[in-house]
Parts: sequence; structure tokens; C-alpha cells
Amino acid sequence: MIKVIFFDLDDTLVDTTKLAELARRNAIENMIRHGLPVDFETAYSELMELIKEYGSNFPHHFDYLLRRLDLPYNPKWVSAGVIAYHNTKFAYLREVPGARKVLIRLRELGYRLGIITDGNPVKQWEKILRLEIDDFFEHVIISDFEGVKKPHPKIFKKALKAFNVDAQEALMVGDRLYSDIYGAKNVGMKTVWFKYGKYSKEELEYREYADYEIEKLQDLLKVIENENGSNKEVHPAR
Amino acid sequence: MIKVIFFDLDDTLVDTTKLAELARRNAIENMIRHGLPVDFETAYSELMELIKEYGSNFPHHFDYLLRRLDLPYNPKWVSAGVIAYHNTKFAYLREVPGARKVLIRLRELGYRLGIITDGNPVKQWEKILRLEIDDFFEHVIISDFEGVKKPHPKIFKKALKAFNVDAQEALMVGDRLYSDIYGAKNVGMKTVWFKYGKYSKEELEYREYADYEIEKLQDLLKVIENENGSNKEVHPAR
Repeated sequence: MIKVIFFDLDDTLVDTTKLAELARRNAIENMIRHGLPVDFETAYSELMELIKEYGSNFPHHFDYLLRRLDLPYNPKWVSAGVIAYHNTKFAYLREVPGARKVLIRLRELGYRLGIITDGNPVKQWEKILRLEIDDFFEHVIISDFEGVKKPHPKIFKKALKAFNVDAQEALMVGDRLYSDIYGAKNVGMKTVWFKYGKYSKEELEYREYADYEIEKLQDLLKVIENENGSNKEVHPAR
Repeated sequence: MIKVIFFDLDDTLVDTTKLAELARRNAIENMIRHGLPVDFETAYSELMELIKEYGSNFPHHFDYLLRRLDLPYNPKWVSAGVIAYHNTKFAYLREVPGARKVLIRLRELGYRLGIITDGNPVKQWEKILRLEIDDFFEHVIISDFEGVKKPHPKIFKKALKAFNVDAQEALMVGDRLYSDIYGAKNVGMKTVWFKYGKYSKEELEYREYADYEIEKLQDLLKVIENENGSNKEVHPAR
């Protein structure tokens, strides 16, 4: 019987991909407003290529963008990009649609909740605290803090240990088939692939490790009812 | 005759010291709100000591604070500090009282304006753009961008060259006796020491290099009238 539900963070609870796209668009627009002599589409597509090559956590996106556009280095333009990027990230950070509703309902049904995420621990906590969802979770396990990344079994085992439950009593929800679904299944958890964000149509290689597939986070409630039988009988609110 | 007026940025146009203090207080408060098991005064005075030792641009203030307080590393607390610190910096960035009024009047009187500042170029531009004072200045010269720091003569000479004026035609206003006043005097500019912020009562060693001392930025207008005679006659608005 499922007692603990683990969530991935980015594009499972936090609407990361959508926010990043908005932040990047606003960054380019502000750079142009402050004199970047390139049209929007050229600059934006160059930035997207750059991010594809160097990764989204690369700290010199805007410097490198100028180099790739054959422009001289100009701290004013970089700063204009950084300001708009950060302003957007702070002002428009949002939950994945319905996330809070689902978390409230799960707590109401008596489930214990956790987060298992990769990424810089301070930045991941920043998203959790800014969204003010920290009170829902008993434990937040951030793999980088342990020196490993999902799907390494260590991080999932550590999460189970923190809750003192067996793998069969836990369910993992995430948008990444390899890191979330393959990783959790590998240690014996039930798995729910949340088809959301930029990975929902890519990397289908590990799809057979998903016990369930959902397209809306609310559908998680049906999955759990299916696993545990009618919720009300099995999990009276504590 | 004075034609160009150069300003330092931090604690001359931007109210840096006051903002940093507010940001640090809010950071500690938010860390405590999220569980930091220390009282405010203990944590704040430890942070101030740390900043004194490592400098205000040290990027690991909050990590080191936990170490100094003999607490385990906790990314949630660090993140709470970072969030409150950045929120404060973005929300409460302010001009030094009267700065815009003085800039408007100087432009009205026909003076050409520039900024000569130390510091990370992107961060310095961020302050200028967030305050939206960039349109007042023909040139912003950031020493770190040139690989030197004030009071190195190179940076002042570069500024004069950008405006194509002689040193006798320029006046430098700043809060730091060594970097601003000694530096500018050294290349032959007129100098105005603005006694504002944390350095107004320290480091008096280079005081003799100041042609003028002012306690309010508005008093700069009197200094210039004194140098050039009645403004209206000498500088008709262009």
C-alpha cells in the first residue's frame, strides 16, 4: 500500500520550462531596448542554440550571446538581460497548474509527501520557498547535496530511509523518464510519468518503467485510488 | 572652466550602504523565520564581522555564516537568506537623496555628465539601469572593465579622453577620499568630496586633495557656481 508520495520539482511542481522561456524572451527584449543592435528573432534563436549547447545553468549566457553575434562585449547589454531575466523569474514563478490543489488533497487523505530533485540545493530551495510549498513536505531530498544525481539509487534509498518506509510503500511522480521513472522503479517504487514540459515528447526510451502515465497532475489522485482502493476507506485523514 | 562633471556611483548617486544594511537585516530575519536556530543580534553581528573580514562582494556570506555559528550546512536557510537579500535589493534600490534633481539641473545648465566607478561592470550597470539614470550620462567608465581600479590615473585619463576635454575642464564628485578625490586630483581635475555613507567619517588621510567638501549632493550646484561664476551666464542651456 502506498504511504509516501515523492515528487520531482522542475516541471512537476514548479512550471520551470514555461518560466525560463518567458524570462529569456524578456531578457532579449530588454537588451534590444538598451541598444543591442540585433532583431529579436536573431538574438533569441542564437540564445536558444547557446543554451542547447552549454546547458540552461551555464552562468555566461548573455556574454556568450554577444560573442556569437560578433558584437563587442558591453556590460550594459549583459546587465539589461540579467535584470529582465531575474525580474521575470521572481515575478512569474508559478506552480504547475493544479499542483497546490493536489498537494492539499493528498495531505487531506493522509499521505506523507516528499521531494526528490536534482540541481543546485540553494536554487532548488529558492523555488520551493518562493512558491511557499515547503510546509507540504516532510523531507526535501536534493541529489546534488549528496554528491549524486538521479537516477542513482542512492538518492532514492536515502529518501525511503528518511521516511522509514519500504520501496513498495512509495510512489514517485516526475516528468523525466530516465532520472525520475527509471531511477525510482529501479529501487522498487511505483512510478507515475507526468507528461509535462519540454520532455513530454522526447526521450521515450525508458517508458516501460512507468507504471502510470498522466497528462494532468490532478490525475495522480485517480492513480492513487487505483493503487490503494477508495481513498476514503484506506486513508482516513490523520 | 568646468565643462564635464564626473560622479562616482556607490554612495554618491546610489544609496548603496543603506540598501546593503537593510538587505542583510532582512536576510537574517528570513533565515530565522525558516528555522535558523539563532537570535537576530547574534546572527547579524556575526554576519557583519564576516563581511568586514571577507569583503562585501564575497559570494558565500550565508554559507560561511552557518559555519561560524557552528551550524550544519542547510541549503534551505541559505536560500531564505539569498531570497530576502535579493528581494530587498531589487525593491529598495534608491538614489542618494536629491541625486536626480541635481542631475536634471546640471543638464539644464549645459554640463556634460559622466560616471567613473569601480566594481563588477554588469553589477554596476544593473544599479544604473534599475535606477533609470543612464540617460543623464554621456559615458560610464567602469574601472574593472579596463583592468584597473581607482585611483589609478589610467581610468581618469580614459574618462577625459572619452569626453575630449582637459583635466582642468573636469570635476570629480565622490565619497572616497583615496580612490575618488586623490585619484582625480592626481590627474589635474577639480575635486568635491561628498561626505556621505560609511566612509564619511573614516580614512581622512587624503582630505587635502579635496578642493571642496559637501554634505548634501545639492550643494554641488553652489560649488559649480563658485567655480564658473553665475551658471546662467556661463552655461546657457544647449
